[in-house]
Amino acid sequence: MFEFDINHTDGHARHGVLTTPHGPVATPAFMPVGTAGTVKGVTPTQLRATGAQMILGNTYHLQLRPTADVVRELGGLHRFTGWDGPMLTDSGGFQVFSLGKIRKIDDGGVEFQSHIDGATMRLDPRIATDVQNKLGADVIMAFDDCPPLPCEADRVEIAVMRTIRWAAECKEAHARTDQALFGIVQGGLDLRLREHCATQLAKIGFDGYAIGGLSVGESHDEMVEVLRPVVPMLPADRPRYLMGVGMPRDIVAAVAAGVDMFDCVLPTRNGRNSQAFTATGQLKMRNEKHRLDDSPLEAGCDCEACKFASRGYIRHLFNSGEMLGPTLTSIHNLRFYQRFLSRIRELIREDRLATIVNEYPIAAMPHAASDSE
Amino acid sequence: MFEFDINHTDGHARHGVLTTPHGPVATPAFMPVGTAGTVKGVTPTQLRATGAQMILGNTYHLQLRPTADVVRELGGLHRFTGWDGPMLTDSGGFQVFSLGKIRKIDDGGVEFQSHIDGATMRLDPRIATDVQNKLGADVIMAFDDCPPLPCEADRVEIAVMRTIRWAAECKEAHARTDQALFGIVQGGLDLRLREHCATQLAKIGFDGYAIGGLSVGESHDEMVEVLRPVVPMLPADRPRYLMGVGMPRDIVAAVAAGVDMFDCVLPTRNGRNSQAFTATGQLKMRNEKHRLDDSPLEAGCDCEACKFASRGYIRHLFNSGEMLGPTLTSIHNLRFYQRFLSRIRELIREDRLATIVNEYPIAAMPHAASDSE
Repeated sequence: MFEFDINHTDGHARHGVLTTPHGPVATPAFMPVGTAGTVKGVTPTQLRATGAQMILGNTYHLQLRPTADVVRELGGLHRFTGWDGPMLTDSGGFQVFSLGKIRKIDDGGVEFQSHIDGATMRLDPRIATDVQNKLGADVIMAFDDCPPLPCEADRVEIAVMRTIRWAAECKEAHARTDQALFGIVQGGLDLRLREHCATQLAKIGFDGYAIGGLSVGESHDEMVEVLRPVVPMLPADRPRYLMGVGMPRDIVAAVAAGVDMFDCVLPTRNGRNSQAFTATGQLKMRNEKHRLDDSPLEAGCDCEACKFASRGYIRHLFNSGEMLGPTLTSIHNLRFYQRFLSRIRELIREDRLATIVNEYPIAAMPHAASDSE
Repeated sequence: MFEFDINHTDGHARHGVLTTPHGPVATPAFMPVGTAGTVKGVTPTQLRATGAQMILGNTYHLQLRPTADVVRELGGLHRFTGWDGPMLTDSGGFQVFSLGKIRKIDDGGVEFQSHIDGATMRLDPRIATDVQNKLGADVIMAFDDCPPLPCEADRVEIAVMRTIRWAAECKEAHARTDQALFGIVQGGLDLRLREHCATQLAKIGFDGYAIGGLSVGESHDEMVEVLRPVVPMLPADRPRYLMGVGMPRDIVAAVAAGVDMFDCVLPTRNGRNSQAFTATGQLKMRNEKHRLDDSPLEAGCDCEACKFASRGYIRHLFNSGEMLGPTLTSIHNLRFYQRFLSRIRELIREDRLATIVNEYPIAAMPHAASDSE
């Protein structure tokens, strides 16, 4: 039911296909994030038109509201959201540590207060797996201990030990054969701990392997310094997923290191904040300079927004507080990411991934880069 | 360039076609409102899919932001908004009196403060026509004096005299032959004043005639008592447009009185407020009873929302503050209105408009009706 075939490599970079019960995913792949059961502001029809192949849902958010039981009653996450393609749910580990007010954490799991209504909740390997079994995504994630960076060495070591033990418990708890289970490698910036975690997870054996605990406060260079040695430690015949990443240059560096899958809120979050991705940088659409600009967000883009909307119109929508501004800019950004990944796959097939920066100068720009408005 | 052909009548009700430079409109027609250059939360592609034929833009809002000059620079309202079908702009009269803080009103025009930034603005027949010439809709409206109801008799009489004089000035100022100009009949609930206004406007001669100053505080019965005698006073060979109306039963009563065109914010405003129209009443989508309901908003509806979204999902979207809730419910409501008007046209062709209430019980319900949640 799950296969992963690598069709071509360019250095460490891989181009392949992940087969899931809801269809194939060409890799390297970028998954838009549908946190609470919707990629914000975009219908499933619009989302498909962006070229998205696989999308992500957040266990933490969905369990708080409407709860996994409600999603299951309403037919599971695919039926619930109207997305009939491949889906992945994270385990809630990252969100518990970044959003929740933690009340108690020990080797068994985490007790926290909901950021929505303050209710006391618990996530542990068994619960996180059970919730994801109920949600019914094609790929589910092991529950991990994911402390934010920078982090004291002792805490990182504890996180790695817990993450390994919890991963084994998740595999034990996993009750559906139509869902793949991925393990998550933790270890912060400590290569020794990363290697230990990767080795132990591979011994347990998972359908795929994720790198967690990056894009949580470290610099781009620090991230790359972890990725280059750590990615090759992951089983080469399984998909490798870098969680929560990221900006175009992060993605290119990670692909070059051998990563196959990505997810990030940037296209939609930035879109809601009036920032539009282009190959040459980000545009701030509230800016005065777009007032009389009849050109689309990006010349040559085939997204629903660029087919009709001028920059001047989109600026007007944001200045008027119209929902259509965030929606159109999110659609454009989602399409931008899919075109970008599609081009990355083509260039891998042509053994010239390194030339991506010629067509996408943004892939050489630091995180904060945007146009000089 | 503009034609209006009546193909069939059923009592006073008429079924016909209004031909505009941007295509035909089957009447009776319902125009969704795109106040600031967007039907809120809906892309032009989605709007077309609801069956909308003609949409409305508000001169008052567009002149405040981004201004008619900007819209003209960006190619006019069709190009600006991406709506390539027929469009109508109102004259700003109604908005000035309902939204603006009026500073000065006299027989020449109105000075008011913008509700956005407090800037002093002026609208008069010449400015309102000039602005609409710049916006470039297919149908533009004469600038009228539209006091809210209830209103003192003297004030209504002044409004009628001004409205007639202003209408003549608008016709004089109108500078584009590719835009039809409609006059607006005022007169509140005073049939003598309504008749005077209708007669005088017909003498001046317009491409179509609107009834303004209704749906501004009076009861349904009061509105119908005005419509029945006043609509037949309007030239029978020109389209008749009832501005700002309304609920299904208002529309049916007005169609039966011989009205051809309608506009109203209800489908989108109620949609944003989680109220979904169905033939049997309105649903409140935040209600607990929808939590585990896997059925669509309305059985048999072919809108983008009903094709995939359960009531339980839409309730979740509203409860989670997701943009997709307002968008999907607006799309459904817009489609509901278009299906409703389409059925009205069919029933007129079959000489049995009166049976509409059998299929649409909501068309017999008072304004506030909704389900008993």
